Amino acid sequence: MNHVLKAQQFTPKLMSLIFNRAAELEVIMHDKQRHEKLGDLLSSEMLFTIFYEPSTRTRMSFAAAGQHLGMQVIGTENAREFSSAIKGETLEDSIRVLCQYQPSAIVLRHHENHAAERAAKVSKVPIINAGDGAGQHPTQALLDMYTIKKELGRTEDLNVIIGGDLLHGRTARSLSYLLAKYSGNTITYVSPKELKIGNDIKAHLTKRGVKFIETEDLESVLPDADVVYWTRIQKERFEGEAVIENSYHISKKHLKLMKKKSIIMHPLPRVDEISTEVDDDPRAVYIEQAGNGMYVRMALIEWVLGYLCTTSSDQ
Amino acid sequence: MNHVLKAQQFTPKLMSLIFNRAAELEVIMHDKQRHEKLGDLLSSEMLFTIFYEPSTRTRMSFAAAGQHLGMQVIGTENAREFSSAIKGETLEDSIRVLCQYQPSAIVLRHHENHAAERAAKVSKVPIINAGDGAGQHPTQALLDMYTIKKELGRTEDLNVIIGGDLLHGRTARSLSYLLAKYSGNTITYVSPKELKIGNDIKAHLTKRGVKFIETEDLESVLPDADVVYWTRIQKERFEGEAVIENSYHISKKHLKLMKKKSIIMHPLPRVDEISTEVDDDPRAVYIEQAGNGMYVRMALIEWVLGYLCTTSSDQ
Amino acid sequence: MNHVLKAQQFTPKLMSLIFNRAAELEVIMHDKQRHEKLGDLLSSEMLFTIFYEPSTRTRMSFAAAGQHLGMQVIGTENAREFSSAIKGETLEDSIRVLCQYQPSAIVLRHHENHAAERAAKVSKVPIINAGDGAGQHPTQALLDMYTIKKELGRTEDLNVIIGGDLLHGRTARSLSYLLAKYSGNTITYVSPKELKIGNDIKAHLTKRGVKFIETEDLESVLPDADVVYWTRIQKERFEGEAVIENSYHISKKHLKLMKKKSIIMHPLPRVDEISTEVDDDPRAVYIEQAGNGMYVRMALIEWVLGYLCTTSSDQ
Repeated sequence: MNHVLKAQQFTPKLMSLIFNRAAELEVIMHDKQRHEKLGDLLSSEMLFTIFYEPSTRTRMSFAAAGQHLGMQVIGTENAREFSSAIKGETLEDSIRVLCQYQPSAIVLRHHENHAAERAAKVSKVPIINAGDGAGQHPTQALLDMYTIKKELGRTEDLNVIIGGDLLHGRTARSLSYLLAKYSGNTITYVSPKELKIGNDIKAHLTKRGVKFIETEDLESVLPDADVVYWTRIQKERFEGEAVIENSYHISKKHLKLMKKKSIIMHPLPRVDEISTEVDDDPRAVYIEQAGNGMYVRMALIEWVLGYLCTTSSDQ
Repeated sequence: MNHVLKAQQFTPKLMSLIFNRAAELEVIMHDKQRHEKLGDLLSSEMLFTIFYEPSTRTRMSFAAAGQHLGMQVIGTENAREFSSAIKGETLEDSIRVLCQYQPSAIVLRHHENHAAERAAKVSKVPIINAGDGAGQHPTQALLDMYTIKKELGRTEDLNVIIGGDLLHGRTARSLSYLLAKYSGNTITYVSPKELKIGNDIKAHLTKRGVKFIETEDLESVLPDADVVYWTRIQKERFEGEAVIENSYHISKKHLKLMKKKSIIMHPLPRVDEISTEVDDDPRAVYIEQAGNGMYVRMALIEWVLGYLCTTSSDQ
Repeated sequence: MNHVLKAQQFTPKLMSLIFNRAAELEVIMHDKQRHEKLGDLLSSEMLFTIFYEPSTRTRMSFAAAGQHLGMQVIGTENAREFSSAIKGETLEDSIRVLCQYQPSAIVLRHHENHAAERAAKVSKVPIINAGDGAGQHPTQALLDMYTIKKELGRTEDLNVIIGGDLLHGRTARSLSYLLAKYSGNTITYVSPKELKIGNDIKAHLTKRGVKFIETEDLESVLPDADVVYWTRIQKERFEGEAVIENSYHISKKHLKLMKKKSIIMHPLPRVDEISTEVDDDPRAVYIEQAGNGMYVRMALIEWVLGYLCTTSSDQ
């Protein structure tokens, strides 16, 4: 049985399978006739979306993914109100009971680290981790990688800037892990000194032979970047407000420094760390990036249900 | 692309199209065989119901409308917990991302005025305004007008009493706007002096040549009324509790003063401003009025999706 | 029109009908081809799940039941936010309006006693009580009885231990009522003196000729039990913490005292009143018990919709 638990479980080969199917699904979804037939295969499958903390965007993305595939989708928006959890029930008991209702798979969002792994240990059906605590959010990591592949045509030999709050940012860490699975990538970390990427990541990159540098000067490294992956610095986590506004805010002037064939990504939500004047530039792909998540999740659902091998033409 | 943004956008001709289809849908829904076939056409369409504030009745009405039409419906009950909104994301970004998940239309309820218009500016799919702030709630206005048409057979030459809190009531204002689109209607506003209808409405009626009067004496005007549209006076907004109980409470004695062919409407929820002893009178149509909303919303969904012209037999 | 309002309405004959169909549905659900066809019959039926207080497990169980039967399911997770209820609308008005949206049945969870009966009085469609206040939770009672039937093959001539907080526990009471409908059953109540079963139940058992005893000593009665139905003692309701830990906690040592063909049940959620080391014993059926609830609810939905007679082969 396949589960989706953490970004690290995905090999380049498996990512290739998922990404090819995601691309295929995107084509199908834009073809009215093929879209209508898409749902037939999974029409008796049921997806549970169990969210112990609210995450409207992720939940809607999974629910839409399931329904576009023809599945029935039911769930809970905020299971901190999961009455049995309030009464002291363990996550394990809750998952065991939910499995009794015969879902085909369970999408789980939880506030505790390693919750998805704990769930997978007792579950009779595949668990898809939709974020657990400060830990893993593997479908976000995969959609980031898929966006790079889709926009630039490759996942190797890339100059990738990852900037913002790299100390607390889950996405910066998992993207680093995935980039290290391919050859020839160079990562440039741009952050205030206080919010630098963790030493464990740097050790991992060194071990894998991935080149990386750290800097506070975005403008000097922009001209070489293929990808600018930008994240938010929460003001409550960093005192230097003026620094944020001057050095961690992407606006039109930065676009001029960038290569023609390059992209600006962001895990969203975006507040003011990327100016809205950037939105219309073809290199700004953060909205499409969020949309890519749905296609990646559709492919992952097919994969955990064992449908991917037989329905994909890419194997 | 059609959006449903405000009551004023609906011409008598367009209302006629919507109302005829709503009536037709009501017939279809009560015919088991036709009901079963109803869902085939829209079965690959998906409706998002995005509620930034809870409104269970309106959400259920839209969700049921979508599902009776065969659509898949997913949404959020209370997106004030929309995690990205809490983190400072703009409504525009949220709508852009939701569109990436390939819905066919988005039903939006929001706590800010003009939210639906802002959403429509960036949306790739039709926006249906399910109420934005103190501003617009166009589907409520249309279902009010549809109820009058259905019950009395006409939208012209009507004597309409609109009573209660006319200063704060959104429905009193929008019904006035819609009545002014037809000829021969007379409006009688019944309210405490402190809660009179706004001067902008009165100016609009004068400009359109619509006769209206204002009074505090319900009983004197009841005998001529075709429609009594009653609304709640919130006690916290008006000190004169005794006045409310004596003059703004409809009971059996008022029924005796009314014409045989007339109707009592109320946007609901009703607390005690209409006595439950009135409920069994055939002129009390407020429960059916709420139900009419679902048929109107079904017709509106078909309209924004471009299906109304081809599926309606009434053109 | 059939409603599901309270456990007492179910005769042995009706329970037999429901339980046979539940067992049949469980078989169908585990047969991929029959499962796929299951949904065809009810595909134009719609189920509303209206929860005035959160109960994630019960709601998910009903929603999954409805969707496995092919129904469309929409609802509200926590209708205390039911905006019209907050504004003072009666339950009766809310139900009347919901019926206007043309559901096939309404599953209602409410915080007030007798809410389901009040709803049934005004509803145009069947009401299924999913728990009202401290009063009734009939589908829980039925799934308990169904579990006994399924696991032990009979509902008569049983030695049943019911233990824990019998004063406040709704399930202990309703299971007692149902056991009294069959002949030859003996009930052993195990509880602290302060939390004994109500005198009304004892009077009812005496009237029906059902033997029962009361004790505080679980171990002495375990060897004769066919069923151990264990419930939680909430610490805030009982001061004797040491007593709870010593006498109201089931662990491996109790298993040794029990008959080979016997079962341990629990309405869940379980906190620490049954040790997790018990879970792997084949006599521990509390997780399956929760799952049985879904099949019972599927059968009840078919019954209230009038489909059970014609689709069940067991009559």
